[in-house]
Amino acid sequence: MSYMERRKPSLAELFSPRGVAVVGASPTGNSGFVRALQEAGFPAIYPVNPKYTELLGLPCYPSVQAIPGVVDHVVVGIPAESALALLDDCAAKGVKSVHFFTAGFSESGYKERTELESAILDKARAGGFRIIGPNCMGLFVPKSHIASSLGLPLEPGPIAFISQSGGHAQDLPFYSSPRGLRFSKVVSYGNALDVDESELLDYFSQDPETDIIAAYIEGVKDGRRFLGALKEAAARKPVVIYKGGMTEAGQRAAHGHTASLTSSVAVFDTLCRQMKTIQVNDTEELTDVLVALRFTNPIPRGTGVAVLGTGGGPTVLAGDEMERAGLHLPHLSPEVEAELRQLLPMAGSIFGNPLDASLFRSRDGISAILRVLGKLPDIHMFIYHLGFHPASRWGSGRLPSPLLQPVIDAFLEARQATGKPVLLALRPAADLSGMKDFLATQEAFVKAGLPVFYSLRQMAKAVASVVTWNQARCS
Amino acid sequence: MSYMERRKPSLAELFSPRGVAVVGASPTGNSGFVRALQEAGFPAIYPVNPKYTELLGLPCYPSVQAIPGVVDHVVVGIPAESALALLDDCAAKGVKSVHFFTAGFSESGYKERTELESAILDKARAGGFRIIGPNCMGLFVPKSHIASSLGLPLEPGPIAFISQSGGHAQDLPFYSSPRGLRFSKVVSYGNALDVDESELLDYFSQDPETDIIAAYIEGVKDGRRFLGALKEAAARKPVVIYKGGMTEAGQRAAHGHTASLTSSVAVFDTLCRQMKTIQVNDTEELTDVLVALRFTNPIPRGTGVAVLGTGGGPTVLAGDEMERAGLHLPHLSPEVEAELRQLLPMAGSIFGNPLDASLFRSRDGISAILRVLGKLPDIHMFIYHLGFHPASRWGSGRLPSPLLQPVIDAFLEARQATGKPVLLALRPAADLSGMKDFLATQEAFVKAGLPVFYSLRQMAKAVASVVTWNQARCS
Repeated sequence: MSYMERRKPSLAELFSPRGVAVVGASPTGNSGFVRALQEAGFPAIYPVNPKYTELLGLPCYPSVQAIPGVVDHVVVGIPAESALALLDDCAAKGVKSVHFFTAGFSESGYKERTELESAILDKARAGGFRIIGPNCMGLFVPKSHIASSLGLPLEPGPIAFISQSGGHAQDLPFYSSPRGLRFSKVVSYGNALDVDESELLDYFSQDPETDIIAAYIEGVKDGRRFLGALKEAAARKPVVIYKGGMTEAGQRAAHGHTASLTSSVAVFDTLCRQMKTIQVNDTEELTDVLVALRFTNPIPRGTGVAVLGTGGGPTVLAGDEMERAGLHLPHLSPEVEAELRQLLPMAGSIFGNPLDASLFRSRDGISAILRVLGKLPDIHMFIYHLGFHPASRWGSGRLPSPLLQPVIDAFLEARQATGKPVLLALRPAADLSGMKDFLATQEAFVKAGLPVFYSLRQMAKAVASVVTWNQARCS
Repeated sequence: MSYMERRKPSLAELFSPRGVAVVGASPTGNSGFVRALQEAGFPAIYPVNPKYTELLGLPCYPSVQAIPGVVDHVVVGIPAESALALLDDCAAKGVKSVHFFTAGFSESGYKERTELESAILDKARAGGFRIIGPNCMGLFVPKSHIASSLGLPLEPGPIAFISQSGGHAQDLPFYSSPRGLRFSKVVSYGNALDVDESELLDYFSQDPETDIIAAYIEGVKDGRRFLGALKEAAARKPVVIYKGGMTEAGQRAAHGHTASLTSSVAVFDTLCRQMKTIQVNDTEELTDVLVALRFTNPIPRGTGVAVLGTGGGPTVLAGDEMERAGLHLPHLSPEVEAELRQLLPMAGSIFGNPLDASLFRSRDGISAILRVLGKLPDIHMFIYHLGFHPASRWGSGRLPSPLLQPVIDAFLEARQATGKPVLLALRPAADLSGMKDFLATQEAFVKAGLPVFYSLRQMAKAVASVVTWNQARCS
């Protein structure tokens, strides 16, 4: 069989390799990928480096061909200059995919490096394998025990993330892990020489293990194709897009980062809206929207919120932030207000919506309030905020942890009884002992399947985006 | 001397009381103020509660008059119903100020409670003492060893904060403490029955211990007087205003919180701008602007920034966020870019502005880059970002802490050599071991007197506000 006859492996094949070679791994430098695969429990890791015979307890091979077992996937950390010779080695071994962590290709701005990149694609086409990158972190597939970095959440989940930034591809799962987000596949695809955003969108719109698609994109290779892929994906699943390089300076950086060129920000913006995707502007907003999509149950079609929480200042802020984001706090009738006055003490409460219930954090208390508010048809969701006020300040020893589980139970009961979702804003601490309390509280809420946000503003923005998307989708 | 002849004590007298009575303190409930005063080292604390003879190791008295020592200030935690009798007791003792932590007055919406509030003011005028509140946390004056809560930063500093929210009055110093903010006086004044925002502004515009004034205001008692006070204060010092209740729902909450009524948001907005104050929309933005005012040295008059940092994705984000906020990233000439290419490796760098210098975090490296960029006249400040990328992810064990002090030294040298300020964005960790690393890194930067921000967006917004204010002030 000549090289030219070889077929091009599909993405599905790339996500469950039988063996992975890590080329350029060394005890002094590039051992991160080997360690990440070990932590993820991948069974067939083959370090390749002619200088060593052993690495991190594994046999180390002089070339890919010298590996005795099957190798489907190759991770490359050697300098760009050695790329072409390595690809001959890979082709001879019959690999399915080569991930270039190596950078210094077209994004460097040097003509000879752009030509080298083209030569790599030619080798891949001839050799019947795919290229991921170059200049990226490659694959994170929990189900297949493939990881690109230490500390990632290894339990599989329903979110796929495609990212032109390797940093974002790792940071999103890492930072969002305590908030309960878990991933089916994460693909960092860098310069998009071969595997690109459109092929990935096509794949994930069909992938049965993926319910939600997230994307960080700096540039689109083929606008028309991307549009079709996006339309198809967004018709099937929620798609959240973070487009990097939306300003002149951002585009300049994107060009230097992944050699991406964006023709028109305004066009991209309009198209994404027309396709009924959700747009965000950084990985924190992306995380917030993913949390809202994943744990708001059910996702409302209306913007009416009832806010209750702790503290007068934060209660005023809650009102301002919700309305600024486009949510609506229905005014309570005198009859409803009278009911609430029966339930709450006169001093230290704010009656109405938003409601300050600082002094009332028992299970029965919250249940009683939510029963009153849950009856109102123009209220579509409940928002509770905590930890913005000294009475519940993390680490002050005044957060009554025996109250925590009963409060969670009250929320779950209210959601069950009213069919309306409950969302939580918890402010992270600024000190270590406070952070310890905060993380324990967050963990309890997340374990109960509730969406947690780190500020009222971030919550309001994410929830408003998701409700707007849900309205557009259902219209 | 009849009550009617008694003079009204000035605010200056209120801030250095010789003795403080805490009325209603009890071992089961309201002991927070006593404990806070103890922690702050105040020497003359007198708990008052007829039920006890001792509290937290201090003699406890049946009434204010029964206290043997001088009492200038009284903190009240007993129910509103007992307020008038207590004030007779206070008047007989000759106190200067009474702070009502007690809530349940006009803000409750009950007519008899609004009348009770008026009767309190009459008693105060007749008795020759001042009222702080009701419905507030009162005074935090580090120099006088007066604190309202545990865990506040007790070292005095140049910022005064007046707040209609007791929660914000505690949260701002508490949460901003690790970023280096320290306070001259913090006054939580709640319903503003007597001591109000205008008198406080007048005071702080003259206070030699205060260089920066921050305010959280829900409603203004006398618009004309406030305008005069604000104009005078803003002409002398930077004034940062967070107005709560800027939406219909926020105003509803503000009315229930401190009985505040705001006539027109648009008018407030315009006036604040005309007065050359800086406006913010929550305590986090307030903290960011205070950090920018306090530690940006010198505060630039131009919007040109040079950004360098770690990671391609964050570098693209940095470009986008700075330009969105109204800052400008000057394009580098081919000559300057060529100089940078000599200093940075080809692979993994982004040449230009923003500049990805992931692989170059040594003292000499940063110094060399900042020397090149510092020569450019259209660059007014340097921005460095760290911790948004796995290579420096907190807690991964990969942040090379021996690099930290040399990096700080490089920044201080660059500031010295170029006369241009350096600002830092560090992303807090989401896990405990990461948070430990993060806090140590932050502490090192803060000790060096450098401004630290928690996201590129927050930094960009705060810096843009402060530059705009500086331009307006100097125009």
